[in-house]
Amino acid sequence: LYEVKWDAVAAEKAGYDHFMLKEIYEQPRALRDTLISRLEDDKVVLNEVDLTAEQLRSFRKVFIVACGTAWHAGLVGKTLIERWVRLPVEVDIASEFRYRSPLVDEHTLVVVISQSGETADTLAALREAKRNGARIVAITNVVGSSVAREAHDVIYTWAGPEIAVASTKAYTTQLEGVVLLGLYLAQTRGTLATEKIRKIITALRRLPAQAQEILDESEHIKDLAQSFVEVEDAFFIGRCLDWNVAMEGALKLKEISYIHAEAYAAGELKHGTLALITDKTPVIALATQMDVYEKTLSNIIEVRARDARVIGITFKSNKDLDKSVDRVIYLPETIGELAPILTVIPMQLLAYYVSVARGCDVDKPRNLAKSVTVE
Amino acid sequence: LYEVKWDAVAAEKAGYDHFMLKEIYEQPRALRDTLISRLEDDKVVLNEVDLTAEQLRSFRKVFIVACGTAWHAGLVGKTLIERWVRLPVEVDIASEFRYRSPLVDEHTLVVVISQSGETADTLAALREAKRNGARIVAITNVVGSSVAREAHDVIYTWAGPEIAVASTKAYTTQLEGVVLLGLYLAQTRGTLATEKIRKIITALRRLPAQAQEILDESEHIKDLAQSFVEVEDAFFIGRCLDWNVAMEGALKLKEISYIHAEAYAAGELKHGTLALITDKTPVIALATQMDVYEKTLSNIIEVRARDARVIGITFKSNKDLDKSVDRVIYLPETIGELAPILTVIPMQLLAYYVSVARGCDVDKPRNLAKSVTVE
Repeated sequence: LYEVKWDAVAAEKAGYDHFMLKEIYEQPRALRDTLISRLEDDKVVLNEVDLTAEQLRSFRKVFIVACGTAWHAGLVGKTLIERWVRLPVEVDIASEFRYRSPLVDEHTLVVVISQSGETADTLAALREAKRNGARIVAITNVVGSSVAREAHDVIYTWAGPEIAVASTKAYTTQLEGVVLLGLYLAQTRGTLATEKIRKIITALRRLPAQAQEILDESEHIKDLAQSFVEVEDAFFIGRCLDWNVAMEGALKLKEISYIHAEAYAAGELKHGTLALITDKTPVIALATQMDVYEKTLSNIIEVRARDARVIGITFKSNKDLDKSVDRVIYLPETIGELAPILTVIPMQLLAYYVSVARGCDVDKPRNLAKSVTVE
Repeated sequence: LYEVKWDAVAAEKAGYDHFMLKEIYEQPRALRDTLISRLEDDKVVLNEVDLTAEQLRSFRKVFIVACGTAWHAGLVGKTLIERWVRLPVEVDIASEFRYRSPLVDEHTLVVVISQSGETADTLAALREAKRNGARIVAITNVVGSSVAREAHDVIYTWAGPEIAVASTKAYTTQLEGVVLLGLYLAQTRGTLATEKIRKIITALRRLPAQAQEILDESEHIKDLAQSFVEVEDAFFIGRCLDWNVAMEGALKLKEISYIHAEAYAAGELKHGTLALITDKTPVIALATQMDVYEKTLSNIIEVRARDARVIGITFKSNKDLDKSVDRVIYLPETIGELAPILTVIPMQLLAYYVSVARGCDVDKPRNLAKSVTVE
């Protein structure tokens, strides 16, 4: 078992103004640590998962259960596992899952995700699923936590201690966790061509350096944040995986800057929420999923027609978007399936700098606790 | 086939200030019309569904696909069908469903919901599911609409023409549609005891009169609305079915009053959004699901500790809630599973009166069209 050693010094701010900024900047390292011991040439190796190939093939359904940011990571997991493994995946908020007698049995793989491993609702959901005979894989950041101890298998995120209430490096490494699990299932069940797996793994290996590249070129996000000082509402839109990660972008802005941010499936806006769009509601439009790019673009044009300021996020190779938005944040090139791991980084930075500009308590936002160990 | 005749006069405002208010008040009639021909003693009779008992037993999964308000009706459908039929149900936003290659085959029952029957994304989703061999049941309000013509079976909501952009009677009759379909499946597949079905049907029959009772006692909601004139943000919270219908309550307020309303699973608030709660953000707390009542109550106490004004919605028999909230809206007694059909009515009225008090264009909110016939 590969283990990353943490010490007290690593938990200090190390020159950063806030733990959150430090943790954002630790992502290249955290992403590398979480990944590196689980890749062997063109294969995913999850030595910590103690399941036979036969067991891995026996699952008929996957349930992902989590709260908050970890739930957002689960939404990405659903999209990827369904696409790669062709198994139905349901994602549930833990506080809902535990009270609705979900259809869980011994052919169900239940994936619980929790940074602290102590989230009360997630832990209760784990126990409920276990009683129903499900196999439990936990994705958690804390060795020896309750969730880690009670799950059958654990995929640790080697993010290191996360101190800021707003989760950053835990989220991106949780995304790696669901990616690794998805690939592992696809590999064992033979649902993805070797060539496709190779392509994904090659792209995965490039992510830590690409995360660094985003951070190195992030000065302009600090400027952008100044234009959010007076903002009271914002929308994050996207389709498919862009929608999944838009939810996390909105939550970051919400929890530390107290701006009422909300994420929407881009195609759903016109079924009501478009009424809220004015020149006072900036829209962050994610456009990294190229198979639905034209559709997203038409939604961007709709919100701009209502005078919204639109900030687009897309790949560097896409020189088309800047014609349709007010500003573009460019990402290094990766495959669409891994885009969320990069897309969230500028949104984390935006939330951070907006919070600072508005004079909020970045690391300890009002009303919130780091781990929610009560229901 | 039972048909309800509409005429031009019925489409006038008939003395109401707005179509929306007229349509809210038509709900007892609409609920009765949609229900009455489908109940025979203690049985649900869906003559319009042309499926053999064998076919009805062959489904392994249900997909509900819709947009906007109809999607909210689908969320209630999921909870009820899973509980009554023990079949996995997935609810999807149509603009997402059509681009994500969902796992749909000939053992899948796909339920599409659309008031107009012309919603572009829903129609495209229907066609996609049909190509994959699924059986399609439509729930729609317009006879001869594209969705009605292309589905294998249609359950019409007999709501009559809905003119206001904000949907009201279409939603409550769509809820009846999913209830009837769920009971019909449970009846055929033998997944609910006869006694339980009888109990639900008895409660169903009482709904139209109970909706009338809510309307007759609604004067106080007009007063309550005055306190929302200066409000810019509001939250709607609840668990399980209360959460599902909270989304519709939030959407109503959003689309016609331009207040940034958002619904949350009550247990999820503390994972971030609680940071937005202050004395300026009223919280509408739905508490009709008595099996999770204590849990919801603890979430109510949390938001009140942050000085939020809380408006509770619960049954008349529950004299406990008024100790923990600022104001209670009481509902006539029904079973928890049918509560959404009643709970939404005071929320529709609140949205209506707030919109009027804020001087908004109630029937034609800015930026929105009645039927979304483009993507």
